[in-house]
Amino acid sequence: MPAVNINADIGESFGAWHKGDDPAVMALINSANIACGMSAGDPTVMHETVALALKNGVSIGAHPGYNDIWGFGRRAMKMNPRDIEYMVAYQIGALMGIAAMHDAKVTHVKPHGALHNVGIVDPDVADAMARGVKGVDRNLIYVGLAHSHIEKAAHAHGLRFAVEGYIDRMYDDDGNITSRFNADAVHKDPAIAARQAVAMVVDKVILTRGGKRIPVEVHSLCLHGDEPTAQAVGSVVRQALLDAGVELKTLPEMGL
Amino acid sequence: MPAVNINADIGESFGAWHKGDDPAVMALINSANIACGMSAGDPTVMHETVALALKNGVSIGAHPGYNDIWGFGRRAMKMNPRDIEYMVAYQIGALMGIAAMHDAKVTHVKPHGALHNVGIVDPDVADAMARGVKGVDRNLIYVGLAHSHIEKAAHAHGLRFAVEGYIDRMYDDDGNITSRFNADAVHKDPAIAARQAVAMVVDKVILTRGGKRIPVEVHSLCLHGDEPTAQAVGSVVRQALLDAGVELKTLPEMGL
Amino acid sequence: MPAVNINADIGESFGAWHKGDDPAVMALINSANIACGMSAGDPTVMHETVALALKNGVSIGAHPGYNDIWGFGRRAMKMNPRDIEYMVAYQIGALMGIAAMHDAKVTHVKPHGALHNVGIVDPDVADAMARGVKGVDRNLIYVGLAHSHIEKAAHAHGLRFAVEGYIDRMYDDDGNITSRFNADAVHKDPAIAARQAVAMVVDKVILTRGGKRIPVEVHSLCLHGDEPTAQAVGSVVRQALLDAGVELKTLPEMGL
Amino acid sequence: MPAVNINADIGESFGAWHKGDDPAVMALINSANIACGMSAGDPTVMHETVALALKNGVSIGAHPGYNDIWGFGRRAMKMNPRDIEYMVAYQIGALMGIAAMHDAKVTHVKPHGALHNVGIVDPDVADAMARGVKGVDRNLIYVGLAHSHIEKAAHAHGLRFAVEGYIDRMYDDDGNITSRFNADAVHKDPAIAARQAVAMVVDKVILTRGGKRIPVEVHSLCLHGDEPTAQAVGSVVRQALLDAGVELKTLPEMGL
Repeated sequence: MPAVNINADIGESFGAWHKGDDPAVMALINSANIACGMSAGDPTVMHETVALALKNGVSIGAHPGYNDIWGFGRRAMKMNPRDIEYMVAYQIGALMGIAAMHDAKVTHVKPHGALHNVGIVDPDVADAMARGVKGVDRNLIYVGLAHSHIEKAAHAHGLRFAVEGYIDRMYDDDGNITSRFNADAVHKDPAIAARQAVAMVVDKVILTRGGKRIPVEVHSLCLHGDEPTAQAVGSVVRQALLDAGVELKTLPEMGL
Repeated sequence: MPAVNINADIGESFGAWHKGDDPAVMALINSANIACGMSAGDPTVMHETVALALKNGVSIGAHPGYNDIWGFGRRAMKMNPRDIEYMVAYQIGALMGIAAMHDAKVTHVKPHGALHNVGIVDPDVADAMARGVKGVDRNLIYVGLAHSHIEKAAHAHGLRFAVEGYIDRMYDDDGNITSRFNADAVHKDPAIAARQAVAMVVDKVILTRGGKRIPVEVHSLCLHGDEPTAQAVGSVVRQALLDAGVELKTLPEMGL
Repeated sequence: MPAVNINADIGESFGAWHKGDDPAVMALINSANIACGMSAGDPTVMHETVALALKNGVSIGAHPGYNDIWGFGRRAMKMNPRDIEYMVAYQIGALMGIAAMHDAKVTHVKPHGALHNVGIVDPDVADAMARGVKGVDRNLIYVGLAHSHIEKAAHAHGLRFAVEGYIDRMYDDDGNITSRFNADAVHKDPAIAARQAVAMVVDKVILTRGGKRIPVEVHSLCLHGDEPTAQAVGSVVRQALLDAGVELKTLPEMGL
Repeated sequence: MPAVNINADIGESFGAWHKGDDPAVMALINSANIACGMSAGDPTVMHETVALALKNGVSIGAHPGYNDIWGFGRRAMKMNPRDIEYMVAYQIGALMGIAAMHDAKVTHVKPHGALHNVGIVDPDVADAMARGVKGVDRNLIYVGLAHSHIEKAAHAHGLRFAVEGYIDRMYDDDGNITSRFNADAVHKDPAIAARQAVAMVVDKVILTRGGKRIPVEVHSLCLHGDEPTAQAVGSVVRQALLDAGVELKTLPEMGL
């Protein structure tokens, strides 16, 4: 029986500013990537988000990013790799502290925003992040893009790695995600997203814009919770996966 | 055989700015209160400071403070107690993440600066801090001022509590520390500091300005590492305690 | 012909986080209190907000607050008065820099959140803020609560002062605003707000909960833009004032 | 009679952390590049630094950098050019607010750290910074590296531009500064620095490592105040320039 995880970035409110409909998104996912206070989130938001995850049976992950609240962690910063290593460990630890208040554990890590994008292409940054994750807890599941430097570094450091696929983004014929500059970059039609998700999990292929079918082994599907269509897409995809006989699991249940 | 711990606030550099002579102070103490990145310190400074503590056989503690780098955590902030609770847990967790990179454990917590001062007199803040400490790990040793709301909250929550005495500060006849507005507030003469420390630990009394001897049970002596006379005072006090047959222990060794 | 100004706090988005419907609120007011980047707002939000004000013929004011983005400037901080003085001047200057890009001038200052609340009751803080305003430009119009230490300090420093009244808040019989803990603290019924506003401006009295009429001389009416009922209340109040023959003016036009 | 300006980066303390010997450096220069609170400095440090500049007859300039206190503005950030434009204007304005408290004017701008380095090579960032400077005050003197995109953008926007030369850095034969990875990158021998400075100003040539003499027109010489040899180098260079009949002027006096 095929199985997959659905994850989303969550807990991205900050102080007096709210972002996203976390209760609605939490009901659609199995694992939560929780902002850790440097790019988004604050200790109180983190506490509420962990509580919400537990209430929904959702496993808890850290979503560390650059120390740049103004930029929401979306601006690449040219940092010393060792600073990145410790900055990642700091944020994972901080979420562990908050999770411990609920007798809960942090079980995965997914880099946020520009830190994720830089790590995909920069081997030094990718290695620093993997060291940061491993240094805190070598059993953490590391979530990232297939074939990226993030995956390479994870394997080099012996970390459990979950390959991530995108539910709601168009893929180009080369297997990469289409740039957001293209009008069709985001699947707003839940039926298209559902077909793509089922193909990834059941048929183990990526469907591309040009009709190619690229073999893939995906462990976790990413739902972009901040798209206005996220709930509609998420609900339909979730049901389509269940209808196709796919089991939805938390990341620790995926047996990585 | 009498025993006591010596602690100091440490790791208070930040980014490009250095503060204090951490290697020199670390050689004089048994337990380190390490800044956690919100009032002072940053992930890289924290990593270096943990390494330095381990090299010196010094036990590791968190020194959480207000989220106010400009103010160095020395400015009281009127915060919601729940925000304080989670802010404290966040910082303890962050240091735990960094400590885990060294296979080390955080074994105590001492509040920093204005957060300490507010907690001493404000029962709601004191309770919030105790909840934050306990929520992360109920075995953490909590360090604070005797007879303060910090101590009361620690006991109310069943936390292990280490009563702190001051090596280098004058005590008034009522048992409180003399205000820094008084010229004799800080003992700069190592001999006076040493006599006060030995009296506290061996004779179990506080020597006051007026010559009173107030009974006290102190578990840890605080050395203010940022006084210019800190190293001279620290060295002499340490030797005087050893000469008086006092055993110097880390906080976990104190059997609290 | 009676005249009054309507002001609102605005430009309180920050980075990726949005807050309030600034275009809708800007259409209802004559003077804008623009967040200056330390409690809310950022340089880009400030630039957009100044442009929006100019487009609406609204005069520009600085809304300086504590350096506490997480707390949105709503948490009192125990700061050295000189730090407050320079922090206020810094924020006014920053907005002047942004305004200059539009060939526009900052013509008033109103303290934000907890800084306003502390200044009302603390003469040292109030004096520091007045020195900060005056130091940057002695012609700035300073907006604040009648009979507060803010007003006293403004007069002591020879600043032009605009007394502020509240459109949408209940007044107690002693002339103070009712605590938000009371269910009737905020007027959600536009008709009540309109009656209160017209009474303040035309009859020069505050209508209190108990039916008292307290004499008052108000120059500017504050609209709380973040209440869900702000636009309804603002529109009705504005029309009621116009219907009562009141002229709506920017603060510089008020002849203070 | 030849004339030149000497400038230095200054006011880089922050809160409880001190950096540099500002009074000593201020006595050696004619124009001060004052940190503006986002990369270094805070409102109180800025106030003290302006006072120190005025006391020494030193003209006042803004030294805006990235919004990254932890990184001291030394880490390049991939920002939207419009965010950079407004961020620069914000910081210039903030210093103008502080300067106004002393009835003083900000007369020049020099970008700090990584923002300077990125602007040198990135035409979009350079253009954004020039727009930010011009937007606040088109009479500001803009200080930067000859032949860089910073200079090109300054000219494109009609800004007064001061070409900066380095007193204490080795030049390669191509006219660029030697990388700090080379052991001889910094002139620690005051005599060498003095010879280089006099050659630049009197003979209007850069002396390179290989003995070449590259024609140059330099308006301002940069003294790196944070080198341990800064005061020795600065004193000797200053005297050598005076002995060579060079007039030392503030930037506004340079007639740019």
